[in-house]
Amino acid sequence: MAKTKKTPRPKADTPKGFRDYFGADVESRKAMLDRIAKVYHLYGFEALESSAVETVEALGSFLPDVDRPNAGVFAWQEDAEGEKPGDWLALRYDLTAPLARVFAQHRNDLPTPYRRYAMGPVWRNEKPGPGRFRQFYQCDADTVGTASVAADAEICMMLADALEAVGIERGDYVIRVNNRKVLNGVLEVAGLPEDAQHERGIVLRAIDKLDRLGPEGVRALLGEGRKDDSGDFTEGAGLPEAQASVIMGFVEAGSAGDHAMGILMNLIGDNATGNEGITELRQIADLCVAQGYGPDRIVIDPSVVRGLGYYTGPVFEAELTFEIEDEKGRPRQFGSVAGGGRYDDLVKRFTGQAVPAVGVSIGVDRLLAALDAKGRLDKAATGPVVVTVMDRDRMGDYQQMANKLRAAGIRAEVYLGNPKNFGNQLKYADKRQSPVAIIQGSDEAERGVVQIKDLILGAEIAETASVEEWKEQKQQFECPLDELVEKVREVLNR
Amino acid sequence: MAKTKKTPRPKADTPKGFRDYFGADVESRKAMLDRIAKVYHLYGFEALESSAVETVEALGSFLPDVDRPNAGVFAWQEDAEGEKPGDWLALRYDLTAPLARVFAQHRNDLPTPYRRYAMGPVWRNEKPGPGRFRQFYQCDADTVGTASVAADAEICMMLADALEAVGIERGDYVIRVNNRKVLNGVLEVAGLPEDAQHERGIVLRAIDKLDRLGPEGVRALLGEGRKDDSGDFTEGAGLPEAQASVIMGFVEAGSAGDHAMGILMNLIGDNATGNEGITELRQIADLCVAQGYGPDRIVIDPSVVRGLGYYTGPVFEAELTFEIEDEKGRPRQFGSVAGGGRYDDLVKRFTGQAVPAVGVSIGVDRLLAALDAKGRLDKAATGPVVVTVMDRDRMGDYQQMANKLRAAGIRAEVYLGNPKNFGNQLKYADKRQSPVAIIQGSDEAERGVVQIKDLILGAEIAETASVEEWKEQKQQFECPLDELVEKVREVLNR
Repeated sequence: MAKTKKTPRPKADTPKGFRDYFGADVESRKAMLDRIAKVYHLYGFEALESSAVETVEALGSFLPDVDRPNAGVFAWQEDAEGEKPGDWLALRYDLTAPLARVFAQHRNDLPTPYRRYAMGPVWRNEKPGPGRFRQFYQCDADTVGTASVAADAEICMMLADALEAVGIERGDYVIRVNNRKVLNGVLEVAGLPEDAQHERGIVLRAIDKLDRLGPEGVRALLGEGRKDDSGDFTEGAGLPEAQASVIMGFVEAGSAGDHAMGILMNLIGDNATGNEGITELRQIADLCVAQGYGPDRIVIDPSVVRGLGYYTGPVFEAELTFEIEDEKGRPRQFGSVAGGGRYDDLVKRFTGQAVPAVGVSIGVDRLLAALDAKGRLDKAATGPVVVTVMDRDRMGDYQQMANKLRAAGIRAEVYLGNPKNFGNQLKYADKRQSPVAIIQGSDEAERGVVQIKDLILGAEIAETASVEEWKEQKQQFECPLDELVEKVREVLNR
Repeated sequence: MAKTKKTPRPKADTPKGFRDYFGADVESRKAMLDRIAKVYHLYGFEALESSAVETVEALGSFLPDVDRPNAGVFAWQEDAEGEKPGDWLALRYDLTAPLARVFAQHRNDLPTPYRRYAMGPVWRNEKPGPGRFRQFYQCDADTVGTASVAADAEICMMLADALEAVGIERGDYVIRVNNRKVLNGVLEVAGLPEDAQHERGIVLRAIDKLDRLGPEGVRALLGEGRKDDSGDFTEGAGLPEAQASVIMGFVEAGSAGDHAMGILMNLIGDNATGNEGITELRQIADLCVAQGYGPDRIVIDPSVVRGLGYYTGPVFEAELTFEIEDEKGRPRQFGSVAGGGRYDDLVKRFTGQAVPAVGVSIGVDRLLAALDAKGRLDKAATGPVVVTVMDRDRMGDYQQMANKLRAAGIRAEVYLGNPKNFGNQLKYADKRQSPVAIIQGSDEAERGVVQIKDLILGAEIAETASVEEWKEQKQQFECPLDELVEKVREVLNR
């Protein structure tokens, strides 16, 4: 007789580069996003939840990284309908491309300007690495349909409010603003016209690396190229000295504080694009200062480039200025947690008409990490009160205790595993990070009392107390059943 | 010279069967889910947000509809790595299959029993139709790792609390509980053993249609089959009279109220499976009654079947009992909004060991529709106060007004479109459902005042008032700039 072939068991694993979020991680992210949404809503922005799946055609290829313009999406083809081949569909890789599609599709029904915010997962078909996932959250706010720099200023101020709302204190962040038009003006003055795309790309990436490489590193990349510590060589833009020094003047204006504007104006001279950019930057700075958002919070900084190819005007970046320790224990600034800018051409893809737009995207995981580093995460600190089961025939009584606690707003549950081994019940409560366990055996039930075990105090005592203290501490005490809620609350408030 | 070929513009459309959610729809769903999450959390359930993407291997094929066991998922193959072909990945089609994977993967770190809730989109590659979308929300709570019927009872009671928390009043819902074991016992008594899968399938689907077809319709499907009004014929199970009458006895016990249990016990006699089921049902009913959840809220009902093949014990369904009008204006009961049951074999696929589990899933869109029908949706009723722009050089002043309102917690924004045509600004405010518009021209600015236009009153007057009333009403009035917040609040509180 032939043996029946068994199907092998499936592997219980997330796909590579994907992960699950549990309990407090889900809750603290939600709490943070709720606070941000509240600020956006107050500013008149409307929620939008677009479809997670888009046609590949609508998504286009605007992945926000100049280094990897063809980085992938997760895509698949629909079944054919008769002769007609199926559409290619894909998971959205950001929240901006879908916004452009939504605005183009619904523009007759939406108000113009359309202020909207969106929060949710996006997916990138990239090689996963440590801390690099293929599904992650974004949190965006955009204003579509106005060219007014008041919209840019508003987004910068709103971003400052959002950062403070989640717990980043004033002084711990700064929003740096630049304008692509200033940069383009400088590039034109340096003899790199708009069609010198290859050289412009190298120059932009070089400027973007100022923080990491310093001025010498940037200078090397403007010229022949640069050899890094590992010996790897990065090709430079090959600019002659005169051209490179214009760019370097621009780069170094960033550290000139109040003089930055003057330096930029000198560099740009009568270049039209550059001057338009300077005027816009001044207007943004004036609007922000008028509302009390001075350079301690929102500052003009010519070193901000931002990789994304589609920006056409003001660009900005929120940086956290406090220090954390890196992997090697060295202090370093926390760095960027949000960025954005003006992109006037995204909707045009669909409609043929230019629709000016400006937006910001908060790096949700980065900002969560920052809050964690500052000890400001809304952690749901405690697990539920656990009502243990001494007598499985009295499940109703135990459920009633949990019910009473819940009716008073106290998180509570009955142990539902096998109650035979009481030690396992306490181990369970420990794993649940329960603050309190409730115990009622038949003896206590007859006398109408319960035992209340203070698990937090218990853990503290176990770690630090002497034998005398151990005996004195009331880590477990008895109380009448009808004082259960009151006594548990006392322990929780301790 | 050859003409440059232009790329055609992409179509601005969601893929077929997908949709976007705007403003109030996003907010009211979020408000409802937040209320449900609060109840689940209070009961000790932990949030879980699993990856949206799973391996096809891990998902298996447990789509919860017996009629279409092979209904599709959205799947694609990863790129090959060298010689090794890429894994097949897919979007999750529900939240239960991922839970089984998560529990199997993390079982050594998770507490047992593991109570978890999850809310989020799921995707089905089905033919879209009116009101039938390929991405929709689910909201689940499950307890994994306990066989105790106290877990089943807890989920039913928690479901009742959740329904009341979102605004379904007591008396407007009932949770019906049955047990697959009772049904299996009846099937055994009726001479349909476990391996008569085909006939059992027909019988289960027939019982599930009792509401729609009535007892005669069900009876026909147990025998030769049934021709519907359109003339279509559905094949029956072909049971002889004696067998069919056992099943019909079971079906009709549902309307026997307090006598249902007695009828079932008579039918089942000494069948072991059936009696186990009855005992469990009694225990669940007793536990619920002990906590005050009587048959007005949680009731034993033998007619509940639920299609999902994987249920192994108690099954339940929450039904809304109030009437709404159907498409043709006839009153009908709103019907089911949630369902669930015990499934003891899902984790076993991965681990080889049986892991008992029970869970419930709320149909998010159905429940939202019910709340809408009852007028109990948390609609963010009003748009923002709109500060209009009379003089574009004083943008800072207008932003300051909006800022003052926001600082007082009032949603407000400055009009950022082209301010030239003032009528367009009021049309915009109308589209935004703004309650109030603020107006300050240069004359008002000099005098330190603003005009406050009550748009809600304005709309009411426009609809109903006589000319005299029109003149008397203060739909627009002047106030000193420093009383702006106070006066706007008065209008909002009117």
